[in-house]
Amino acid sequence: MEAYKNLEARYRQITNLSEVQSIVAWDEAVMMPKGGSATRNQQLAELANTIQALATAPEIGQWIEQCEAMNHQLNDWQKANLREMNRHYVQLSAIPPELNRELVVARMQCEQVWRELRAKNAWTEFKPHLQKVLDLTRETLTGLSHVFKTPIYDTALDMFSPGLTTQTVSDLFGQIGKELPALVEHVIEKQKKEPVIVPQGSFPMAAQKALGLDLMKAVGFSMDNGRLDESHHPFCGGTSQDVRITTRYAEDEFVSALMGVLHETGHAIYDQNLPREWHGQPVGNSCGMAVHESQSLLMEMQVVRSHQFIQFALPFIEKHLGPYVKNRESLTVENLHRLVTRVEKGFIRVDADELTYPAHVILRFEIERDLVEDKWSLAELPEVWDQKMQKLLGLSTKGNFKDGCMQDVHWPSGAFGYFPAYTFGAVIAAQLFSTIEKSHPGIRDEVAKGKFTTIQSWLREKIWSQGSKLNTLDLVKSASGELSATPFLQHLNRRYLGA
Amino acid sequence: MEAYKNLEARYRQITNLSEVQSIVAWDEAVMMPKGGSATRNQQLAELANTIQALATAPEIGQWIEQCEAMNHQLNDWQKANLREMNRHYVQLSAIPPELNRELVVARMQCEQVWRELRAKNAWTEFKPHLQKVLDLTRETLTGLSHVFKTPIYDTALDMFSPGLTTQTVSDLFGQIGKELPALVEHVIEKQKKEPVIVPQGSFPMAAQKALGLDLMKAVGFSMDNGRLDESHHPFCGGTSQDVRITTRYAEDEFVSALMGVLHETGHAIYDQNLPREWHGQPVGNSCGMAVHESQSLLMEMQVVRSHQFIQFALPFIEKHLGPYVKNRESLTVENLHRLVTRVEKGFIRVDADELTYPAHVILRFEIERDLVEDKWSLAELPEVWDQKMQKLLGLSTKGNFKDGCMQDVHWPSGAFGYFPAYTFGAVIAAQLFSTIEKSHPGIRDEVAKGKFTTIQSWLREKIWSQGSKLNTLDLVKSASGELSATPFLQHLNRRYLGA
Repeated sequence: MEAYKNLEARYRQITNLSEVQSIVAWDEAVMMPKGGSATRNQQLAELANTIQALATAPEIGQWIEQCEAMNHQLNDWQKANLREMNRHYVQLSAIPPELNRELVVARMQCEQVWRELRAKNAWTEFKPHLQKVLDLTRETLTGLSHVFKTPIYDTALDMFSPGLTTQTVSDLFGQIGKELPALVEHVIEKQKKEPVIVPQGSFPMAAQKALGLDLMKAVGFSMDNGRLDESHHPFCGGTSQDVRITTRYAEDEFVSALMGVLHETGHAIYDQNLPREWHGQPVGNSCGMAVHESQSLLMEMQVVRSHQFIQFALPFIEKHLGPYVKNRESLTVENLHRLVTRVEKGFIRVDADELTYPAHVILRFEIERDLVEDKWSLAELPEVWDQKMQKLLGLSTKGNFKDGCMQDVHWPSGAFGYFPAYTFGAVIAAQLFSTIEKSHPGIRDEVAKGKFTTIQSWLREKIWSQGSKLNTLDLVKSASGELSATPFLQHLNRRYLGA
Repeated sequence: MEAYKNLEARYRQITNLSEVQSIVAWDEAVMMPKGGSATRNQQLAELANTIQALATAPEIGQWIEQCEAMNHQLNDWQKANLREMNRHYVQLSAIPPELNRELVVARMQCEQVWRELRAKNAWTEFKPHLQKVLDLTRETLTGLSHVFKTPIYDTALDMFSPGLTTQTVSDLFGQIGKELPALVEHVIEKQKKEPVIVPQGSFPMAAQKALGLDLMKAVGFSMDNGRLDESHHPFCGGTSQDVRITTRYAEDEFVSALMGVLHETGHAIYDQNLPREWHGQPVGNSCGMAVHESQSLLMEMQVVRSHQFIQFALPFIEKHLGPYVKNRESLTVENLHRLVTRVEKGFIRVDADELTYPAHVILRFEIERDLVEDKWSLAELPEVWDQKMQKLLGLSTKGNFKDGCMQDVHWPSGAFGYFPAYTFGAVIAAQLFSTIEKSHPGIRDEVAKGKFTTIQSWLREKIWSQGSKLNTLDLVKSASGELSATPFLQHLNRRYLGA
C-alpha cells in the first residue's frame, strides 16, 4: 500500500498545479489585459510541463506496477483511481514534453488571434494558426493512438469523454439524424401559427447579472464556491471548490445570456458536488465532457426551458428586468416558454435551439473526424462546411467564415473530439430526467414551486458523487440503464409537438 | 558559458511559475470566493515548493560555481544576474521545503482570518494565527541569518530591500525622528488658520473608477499591460507585463481612493518599465521594496499631491465627479491642495498624511525588530503598541486592536522587515525628485500641463531600466548621490510651511 499512498500524494501535488492552471486559464479569458498574452502563454506552458514531469516520472510507472500486483488490497474506489492514474500516466508519457509545450503555446496563441480574426472574418489570416494547432494535435493524437492501440479519432473522443468511440457516436448520431430533419420541419411549420412576442427594451448588464445570480442560487449554485463573470465565449472553469462560470450580455436581449448562465450553472453544480473525499485524486474528477454536458443540458433543456421553470422564474424576471421591458405583455409564462422553445435554422451553434443543435454537432463531428484522420486539408474546410450546412440546415456560409467554420473556440483551442459530447450530453440528460420522472412523477410541479432538492439529491447520488469511478456509458447505465436516443426523441416530440 | 546559459534557462522556468504565483495570489485577494481558501492555500504552497525545488536543485550550485570561476567572461549585467541568482539559491536552500510550505499556508490562513477578525476587533482570537506566522518566519530568518552571517533583523530587511541594515534604518529614522515631531506640531498649528472644505456627496464607484483610470493613463500606466480592481487592502501585484493594482472605494469620500490609485500607479509604472530584455532573469526584477515605494511615493507625494498636479487633474475631477459634488465651492485647486496636504494625527497608517506617516513606520520598525529578535512576546504587543502610539502621536489604542496592532496586512502575511521601506521610499523619492528638478527647473510647470514625459524619461533611465543590477543604496547613489534625509525634510518644510 506504500506505492498506492505515494501515488495519492503525487496526485495531490498534480491536482494543486492543475487547479492553478484552471484559475490562470480563467484569468486569461476573463481578466488578462492584452499585453499579458505572450508571458501568459509561457506560464501555462511551464505549468503543463511541470505537471507532465510530475505525472510521468519513472517512479510513477513503478508505483503503478506495484499497485497492480496487489490490486486485491484496493477497494473499488482505489481501483478506479489507479485506473485513472494509469490512464494519465500512459497518456502524458506518450507526449514528448517539447510537443506538449508547443501545443499549449500554439493553442493559446490561436485562441487569442481567433478572438480578433473571427470578428474580422479573416479566414486566410487565421488558417495558418489553426493549421499549427491541428498539426500539433494530430501529432499528439498519433502518439497516443499508438500507445492505446485505438484509431486516432477514437483517441480524441476518449480524451474528452472516456468510453466514447467513433462507432458509438456514429450509431447515436445516425439514430438522431434519421428522425430530426423531419421533426424540425414539422415544428417550424407548427410554430408559424404560434406567434411569440420578443421582450423589447434596453436591459442593463447589472440587472441581467442580478437576475442570473438569483436563479443560479435558486437551482443550487453555491456562491461560497464560485463566481459569475463575463468573457468572450461563455464557459465553466475554475476548480471544484471555486467554480468560475462566465457569460456575455447583450443589452437589447436578455434571454440568451440568462439561458447561458443557467446552462453553465448546470456544469458548475456538478463540479461543486464532486466527491470531496476524493478531491485531489483523478477518480474525484468529473466523468468527462459528455456527462458534464449532460448536467448543463439537464439544467438548461430539461429544467429551465420548461413551462414549470418559467412559472417559477417569472417573478424574478419581473423584479430585475420588468422596469426595462417596454412591451409588458411579453412577460407571460406562455409567451416566454414559446420564446425559449422557438425553433429556427441558424448559422451559430451556441445560439441554436434544442432541435437544430444536433445538426450543428453532427456537422462538426464529421468534419473534425476527417480533419484528425487527415482525409482532406484545412484549405477545403470552408467549402466542406458550406456544403454540409446547405445539406443539414439549408444555409449558405460561402465567404461568411465568422458564422461558419470560424465560429467556435474549440478547434483553435485544440479541442478536436469535444463536439460529440454536446449531443451525447443532451441524450443523456433526457434519459436521466425521464428516469427521475418515473420515480418522482411530481417532479415538474416541484420545479414550478422552485423546489430543486429532489433533482439535486438524485443527481448527487447517481452522478455527482460518482466522480470518474465509471466511464461515460457505464455511469449512465448504472444511473438509468443502457444509453438510448429514445428518451431524447420522446422529450422533443412531447415538448415541440405536444405528442 | 554553458553553465550560465543553463542558469538563465532555469530562471525562465522559475519566472514563469513565480508569475503564476503572483496572478493566483492577486486572484485570491480580488476574485476568489470564500470557499476556495483551503484549496487555494494548498495550490500556493505547491507552487512555492515547486519553485524552491527548481531553484535549489544541486545542479544550480554547480552551475553557479562554474560561472564564478569564469566570471571575467560575463558582462556587468550578467554578473549582477549571477549575484542575484546566487542570493536566491542560498536563500531558498537555507529554508527546508516543509517549512517553506508551512509558512505559505500559515500566511495565507492568517491573512484570511485577519480580514474577518480585524473587523471584529478580535485580538485574542487572532493572536494564535499571528503567533504561528511569527514563529515560522523567525525559524526561516534564523536559518537565513546563519547562512548569510547577518543579524536576524538585518536578514529580514535585506529580504525586502537589499542593502538595508538595522544600522542604516536606525540612522535615517533617527535623523527624521529628531526633526519631525516639532514640524508636525508647527504645521497642525498653522493649518488651524487654513480652513478646508471637504467635498460632500455620494460618489458612485463607477465614476470614481473612471476618474482613476483617466489619471492613471495620463501619468503613464499602460492599460494594455495592467488592470485596476478592488480589494480589501490596496496593492500592486501581477507581473511586469500584466500589472494588477487595486483600491477600495468609499461612496462618501473620493480623495483617499484616488490617492491610493495613483500611489499604486507609481508602483505599477515601475513594474511595467522594467528592462524587457532581462525579463525572466532575477536581474530584470525590481530593485526591492524601498525603491518600489520610492516610485509610488514619488508619484503620490512629489507629483500628485502638488498644486500643479491638482491644477491638471481638476477638469477630470469636475468631469467625473462634478455632478455628484453638493458643495461645488470645494472644487478649487487651492482647496483640494489643502485637502490632500492636511496633517492630522490618526490611528491608521494607510490613512496617514505625509508628515505623520514616518511616525507610524518608526513605531512598526521598532516593534517588528524586537519581535523578530524575540525581545518580548506577542502577548505584550497591544501594550507596547499603545505606549509607542501615545509617545509618538499622543493617541491611545487601548482595547482598540483593529486600529492598533491589527490594522496592517503585513505581519499576518509574514512581511516582517517590510515597513522601513515606506519611509526609505519617501526619502528616496524626495531625493530623486529634487535631483530631477535641479536639471529640469520647469518640471513643476510640466506637471501642471499634464506633461509627464520628462519625469518618465529620467526615471526610466536612472531607475526603471536598471532592474536589480544594483542594490538599494547603490542605485540611489548612481541616480542622485548618497542617500540623505535632507531633501525629504526640505520638501516637507517647503510644502507644509512654505519655507
